[in-house]
Amino acid sequence: MSMNTVNERVAALRAAMEAQGCAAYIIPTGDPHSSEYLPTHYNSREYFSGFTGENSNLVVTRTGSALWADGRFFVQAEKQLAGTEIELEKMGEPGVPTVEEYCAAALNEGEALGLCGFTASCGLVRSLQKALDAKHCTIKTLHLEDELWTEGRPALPATPAWILSKEYAGFSPAEKLGQLRAKLKELGCTAQFVGKLDNLAWLLNLRAMDIHCTPYAMAFCYVTPDKATLFINTARVTPEAAAELKKNGVELAEYDDVVKYMASVTEPQTVLVDPASVNFEIYNTLEQNAALTVKDEADPLLPMKGIKNEVELAHTREAHIRDGVAMVRFEKELEERMAAGEELTELTVDEILHKYRSAQDKFLVESFNTIAAYGPNAAMMHYHATEADHAKLEPKGFLLVDSGATYMDGTTDITRTYPLGELTEDERLFYTWTLQCHIDIAKAVWLNYCDGHMLDTIAREPLWQHLINYRCGTGHSVSFVGNVHEGPHALNGRNTVVFKPGMIITDEPGVYEGGVVGIRIENELECIHKETNQYGEFLAFQPVMYVPIDTSPIVPGVLTKDELAWLNNYHRQVFEKLAPRLNDEERDWLAKKCAAIGA
Amino acid sequence: MSMNTVNERVAALRAAMEAQGCAAYIIPTGDPHSSEYLPTHYNSREYFSGFTGENSNLVVTRTGSALWADGRFFVQAEKQLAGTEIELEKMGEPGVPTVEEYCAAALNEGEALGLCGFTASCGLVRSLQKALDAKHCTIKTLHLEDELWTEGRPALPATPAWILSKEYAGFSPAEKLGQLRAKLKELGCTAQFVGKLDNLAWLLNLRAMDIHCTPYAMAFCYVTPDKATLFINTARVTPEAAAELKKNGVELAEYDDVVKYMASVTEPQTVLVDPASVNFEIYNTLEQNAALTVKDEADPLLPMKGIKNEVELAHTREAHIRDGVAMVRFEKELEERMAAGEELTELTVDEILHKYRSAQDKFLVESFNTIAAYGPNAAMMHYHATEADHAKLEPKGFLLVDSGATYMDGTTDITRTYPLGELTEDERLFYTWTLQCHIDIAKAVWLNYCDGHMLDTIAREPLWQHLINYRCGTGHSVSFVGNVHEGPHALNGRNTVVFKPGMIITDEPGVYEGGVVGIRIENELECIHKETNQYGEFLAFQPVMYVPIDTSPIVPGVLTKDELAWLNNYHRQVFEKLAPRLNDEERDWLAKKCAAIGA
Repeated sequence: MSMNTVNERVAALRAAMEAQGCAAYIIPTGDPHSSEYLPTHYNSREYFSGFTGENSNLVVTRTGSALWADGRFFVQAEKQLAGTEIELEKMGEPGVPTVEEYCAAALNEGEALGLCGFTASCGLVRSLQKALDAKHCTIKTLHLEDELWTEGRPALPATPAWILSKEYAGFSPAEKLGQLRAKLKELGCTAQFVGKLDNLAWLLNLRAMDIHCTPYAMAFCYVTPDKATLFINTARVTPEAAAELKKNGVELAEYDDVVKYMASVTEPQTVLVDPASVNFEIYNTLEQNAALTVKDEADPLLPMKGIKNEVELAHTREAHIRDGVAMVRFEKELEERMAAGEELTELTVDEILHKYRSAQDKFLVESFNTIAAYGPNAAMMHYHATEADHAKLEPKGFLLVDSGATYMDGTTDITRTYPLGELTEDERLFYTWTLQCHIDIAKAVWLNYCDGHMLDTIAREPLWQHLINYRCGTGHSVSFVGNVHEGPHALNGRNTVVFKPGMIITDEPGVYEGGVVGIRIENELECIHKETNQYGEFLAFQPVMYVPIDTSPIVPGVLTKDELAWLNNYHRQVFEKLAPRLNDEERDWLAKKCAAIGA
Repeated sequence: MSMNTVNERVAALRAAMEAQGCAAYIIPTGDPHSSEYLPTHYNSREYFSGFTGENSNLVVTRTGSALWADGRFFVQAEKQLAGTEIELEKMGEPGVPTVEEYCAAALNEGEALGLCGFTASCGLVRSLQKALDAKHCTIKTLHLEDELWTEGRPALPATPAWILSKEYAGFSPAEKLGQLRAKLKELGCTAQFVGKLDNLAWLLNLRAMDIHCTPYAMAFCYVTPDKATLFINTARVTPEAAAELKKNGVELAEYDDVVKYMASVTEPQTVLVDPASVNFEIYNTLEQNAALTVKDEADPLLPMKGIKNEVELAHTREAHIRDGVAMVRFEKELEERMAAGEELTELTVDEILHKYRSAQDKFLVESFNTIAAYGPNAAMMHYHATEADHAKLEPKGFLLVDSGATYMDGTTDITRTYPLGELTEDERLFYTWTLQCHIDIAKAVWLNYCDGHMLDTIAREPLWQHLINYRCGTGHSVSFVGNVHEGPHALNGRNTVVFKPGMIITDEPGVYEGGVVGIRIENELECIHKETNQYGEFLAFQPVMYVPIDTSPIVPGVLTKDELAWLNNYHRQVFEKLAPRLNDEERDWLAKKCAAIGA
């Protein structure tokens, strides 16, 4: 998008906002379900700012405009906002105001801030209102995005909705509803309004393809003691799915009727609502219904879903083996074509990966847009090559490839950084230190009281020793046949969820030197019970993905004996698990990649 | 104390408690100032239970009695309670109730729990009351300890009180009062009632020797915008100290008048009170005084004191060098006398240490009772040898020595574990792993958002790898010319105080295998600014004490290259710093102890 287009759209928004008597307008990254990845229909923040990254807010005031980006997107946002009137606010950097602080500063006494109540979560509106209270400012719900963005706007998605069978999910929708109702009882509630697509998908084993790379259906669910009502565009529910849902005590209602329906509920219930994920408009509807007592609580589905059951874990491990086979074939082909002197670009990477992944049994879709970033492009943590803007692969430096797929039996997310030829000493060192970070958390053992931010220091310490940090978490949870980022646990400097066996987490430290190089090495790990003894219960991780980690860039003498032992043992397992599924030539190639290395 | 004596005393307490209409009585480890170490006058919990450890509570009910001990004291408490009616409750172990839970379970609907309001902190009483609320139980303040323990009870201490000069403290009392008043203003308060002896000592540079090994005076202080009132037994304030305090705007009042005085204050103030450290009786007095508005806040003196100023830091470093000289002379003499076949015991250790420490310039007193624990005795983390019960030193196994002193220019706390001869393979491994823990935290580098419990995992990881843990914190702060344990920061699994340059912390991981062996290696470290770059501000530690760490027990091939480099570099510095203060023979001895080792 050109900088002129952005400036024009911002100007139009500003004019509409002033016409409605608002001194500022905020467009969060959001859909009615607080989704991280949005149906394109809801890409308003991108439409008005040109920024294509994630987790961002755009604020337009009478005299200016600003966009917040998190550490993964600093470089990308700088590039995409260059020349527009929008200023970049780097989240979490010293001196950078929060969205709330910015709005509070921009508004004068008694003025109004505008936003769309259906795409803003209740939590966001509350924190904005709190910041504005001192100046007696109000929040006005408008729909300026819908008014201004009509031309060429993608329709609401309506892909077929289906039910993941118990064979994969481990429990039927009825069983999961039973688990949830028991949980609600513990929390003093009789009902729940579920707003988040991933939690709802887990609860009812519901899947579709409404969101790019994310197999979910746009829907809400209202769970009471004796039934569950699924608000969904019913025309797209397959007959099999409709029958299965009915069998499990789930009745259907139209997606567009959710507000009307919830406003007219007459059966008294104490309804659990997570303000962080239910949108402002629905929250208000529930609160204004006299039959309902709204109780704010963190969504109990999040921790229920975060600990995978045995069936999910077994499938996940198997899906990762097949994904590993595709990764091996990809790397082998890439190497051979580079060696043959063929002209390849970042875009070729995705083509090859897709060829091998989609050939695997049970493949559904890529789990996110492949990040294939060559050289300095990889310093942008979530860089995406485009037809218009991509790099040619040269026989030197690093190629970072972060990719994954969703299969019927699991979702994967893996990053490898491949040396394409000669490396600088810095590149080798950065690679080796990143690998140390990766291994140190992968081989960590801890007592069961540790949470994500206590373990995160173990992951970062090898890079901190060299006064380097990565401006993002070390890892996130991955859904089962679902979205690639989920909660509640994470490895970062803030997360306080205690790790428990059955949790899946990515381990993806990196070095990102702007304009120079980007390196990331990522596996998914499973939290396991290690041993209980006189000191308590020890937990540990074990990898769920088995794909060689290139050993050629490793600087000798840096890895410790234990780190080396982990690496060599990992490669032994990679070979054992993948070899039976490869042909002779591939197996020979893999054997070389998995060869043990010395100190 | 015999088990019969304990049982008789508990029985007497039970009878008195029932006579007063209480169903249970709690004796916390406490004096009127929430001190960790008590004047012997307040050793009621020890008098009634026979347990001589720290941080404990005794509860007597109609039908039973229980004593809580923390991980450092499990072994010792088991030994000391053996044969008495008192059951040991191991704090923090699975299934062990808290004191509050225990009391709530022991009492029936509407019954009363008794305690002394002057030795129980307001915080303790509140958490007890909260636990008892469900059964509508009440708390009755009594003084059964005073009624039952009269014979042979030590008097209240009344040692001379003096003022540490600004040359050592860095700031005068008037300057520190100014700093505190500015802080109080930020917190919306005009006054503070200071209950804790260490905070008060820091505020007024007040010192005495009321508590064994702890150079503080029993006193309270009431700080208002224009004056400070020090409640102290005025007869023991030296004329110089009285004059100095007057010059600094501090007026004196009698210690015993504190309740009467605070009840009759008429000047309106908003008084900051830390319920965790002000006793229940005084808190109530303040609350009932209509002129005063009580505001609960954590004592701001704690963080002010926790970050040492440049003058304190410079003195601390120098005091540790002299302490190091004493430690070196001690170890040399111990080695020589062991080699000569002399019969030595755990008690000899303290004699030798005292001889060398007390000969050092500016020596005031040991900073705590020396822990000299041979062989399995060292598995008791805070074991103390007595005339009646101590071990002979044999030419095999380990001797753990944890000791320290307070000088006019600093307080020290150091532990070394000495091999006295042949070691088992386990002993060597435990020693090596403990050393890894010690070094890993000593050489840690981190971004300035990290707190104590985020860094603590780095310290424990080497032992966790072997499924071993130590049931205590990794480290605590040490006061300047004061008590050996202070807050607010600490290295343990719970502390959330963010580390800042100028903080002192001990680094004392260990292995404690009950009945077998105890190993601890402890230095004091200073938190320093390392570098600020594009990633933020990096912090690190540097040792403040320089005493050789025995390298002979180290199992080859276990320490990493970086750990070895730290150790060899540390020993290079030990030699550089101590050698100029030693005679030729001592210097030769030290050179051998400081020799670099290989992998």
